[in-house]
Amino acid sequence: MRILTGLQPSGKLHLGNYFASIKPMIDLQNEGSSDMFMFIANYHALTSAKDAHLLANNTFEAACAFLALGIDPQKSTFWVQSAVKEVLELYWILSSYTPMGLLERAHAYKDKVAKGFDTKHDLFSYPVLMAADILLYDSNLVPVGKDQIQHVEIARDIALKFNNSHGEIFTLPEARVDENIATVPGTDGAKMSKSYGNTIDIFADAKTLKKQTGKIVTDSTPLESPKEWQNCNVYNIAKLFLDDDGQKELQKRYEKGGEGYGHFKAYLNELVSEYFKDAREKFEYYLNNKDKVDEILSIGAKKASTIAAKKMEKVREIVGIY
Amino acid sequence: MRILTGLQPSGKLHLGNYFASIKPMIDLQNEGSSDMFMFIANYHALTSAKDAHLLANNTFEAACAFLALGIDPQKSTFWVQSAVKEVLELYWILSSYTPMGLLERAHAYKDKVAKGFDTKHDLFSYPVLMAADILLYDSNLVPVGKDQIQHVEIARDIALKFNNSHGEIFTLPEARVDENIATVPGTDGAKMSKSYGNTIDIFADAKTLKKQTGKIVTDSTPLESPKEWQNCNVYNIAKLFLDDDGQKELQKRYEKGGEGYGHFKAYLNELVSEYFKDAREKFEYYLNNKDKVDEILSIGAKKASTIAAKKMEKVREIVGIY
Repeated sequence: MRILTGLQPSGKLHLGNYFASIKPMIDLQNEGSSDMFMFIANYHALTSAKDAHLLANNTFEAACAFLALGIDPQKSTFWVQSAVKEVLELYWILSSYTPMGLLERAHAYKDKVAKGFDTKHDLFSYPVLMAADILLYDSNLVPVGKDQIQHVEIARDIALKFNNSHGEIFTLPEARVDENIATVPGTDGAKMSKSYGNTIDIFADAKTLKKQTGKIVTDSTPLESPKEWQNCNVYNIAKLFLDDDGQKELQKRYEKGGEGYGHFKAYLNELVSEYFKDAREKFEYYLNNKDKVDEILSIGAKKASTIAAKKMEKVREIVGIY
Repeated sequence: MRILTGLQPSGKLHLGNYFASIKPMIDLQNEGSSDMFMFIANYHALTSAKDAHLLANNTFEAACAFLALGIDPQKSTFWVQSAVKEVLELYWILSSYTPMGLLERAHAYKDKVAKGFDTKHDLFSYPVLMAADILLYDSNLVPVGKDQIQHVEIARDIALKFNNSHGEIFTLPEARVDENIATVPGTDGAKMSKSYGNTIDIFADAKTLKKQTGKIVTDSTPLESPKEWQNCNVYNIAKLFLDDDGQKELQKRYEKGGEGYGHFKAYLNELVSEYFKDAREKFEYYLNNKDKVDEILSIGAKKASTIAAKKMEKVREIVGIY
């Protein structure tokens, strides 16, 4: 069972990224029952990179971050998308099997057009590149958010069209949406998202972390009164770091009164700092050891390339590329 | 002055291909004042290749044919498009600088849609790949037919958008339409074109050549009567092979009477056979010496790759590809 994940090099990672997508992926990797393929999608990132000159640095930092958070290059195949050029050749070839209607109906594109974005060709053809990413490696499962299900279906449709013409060349991928995944509230209670500016960042330094948790919206129950933990944003973020016993203990502190939200925020700071202590150290190490990171990435790229080259040899022969 | 030409590997070449595009290109090469870049556009050919399994063979035969007809790998850079993978990376990157409207307004695409073709993404995005072909090599001039002028303008627009963001990275290409180019009539008097089935093929064997010239439409002037050469399809094809003296001589034979169109067709057969005699021998030689052809192509690919790699190193750095 091969599971493929494309990771966006979108700058600072926050708790929402971690609990909703990174942790489940790392857990799967450590379970050991799946063949995990994870790449930093820097070609895709071009579609949204406004400060293009930062993209290379974001790509490097993303590599550092994912390695620090637990991607294990011994267990997983981990590389930067642009290191395997075959994906772009497959992208072009798949374009011959992609009806325009399939792309015109893609919600992500239609939404951007409806919102009046100045749409470029990359945004329109994005699902074909995503199909190439998925099909090149014979991926079985692609864990995605609900907004990306359609793109995996497009990849499946393209694979079917190709296979119908040429035999069983591509594995048909399936989207996997984990309904049980934690929704992580941001500091304002809405879903944590960089675009809402309500994040708590994984690798924030102590000062920034204090500032970010300080922004968490709470009610005005006085310090000495008992408090409701159920709808408290501080509690709902803190519980992600706690086991059952830890959660019950914190609930009791809420119900007992005598502590204010400032105390709970300080406790959350401790939890975050402690939980990511090792990761933060590793992150710093990787940031300062680019050679080491590049070496790890090149090993992953070689593993991915070997599979990609084999697949493309077959595909080229079938479509008649000299 | 770098002149870039993409050659379609579309099977048998005919006199129309030769006099309207191949000969002018070879003449330019032999003049020696331009830096000629010529590639067999096999990625582009995927958009129309219905019998995809023939494409590889067509690509090889096209290489044999162009070499036989005078492409000189010492004077020109000559390669197969798919041998320089950088073009696909540039294609993706340029997509971020290509407004959808630019492609939606492309006549070639609109025409196909209007004719009810089952359009695929490759046809729509074709001008972006063509832009990558042109810009990757800093081409100054692109000789094209009138129907392709717009595509060169799209390449220019994309280059301008990129340069506006990042400085003078790409040379702005210009389309060159040679208005003086011979229009070669087919056997029915309409423009010679494979799709009209009115061609006389360059490398036809004697029997096929006789059959093809036999199909040339003539009027019913009796053998003994004087004939009009002005509007005679046989004359108008034959004159392409004749200098002024030769043309005058043939005109006299028409005006004198006593010879039928069969005689003139036989003469045309001789002219065609004689003109392409060396080329036909070389073509046979190359067809039977694939190693030699591949060696020539790989030298061209290396020359093109060196330029492409240098350009892409710059482009990747600018847009932030790690």
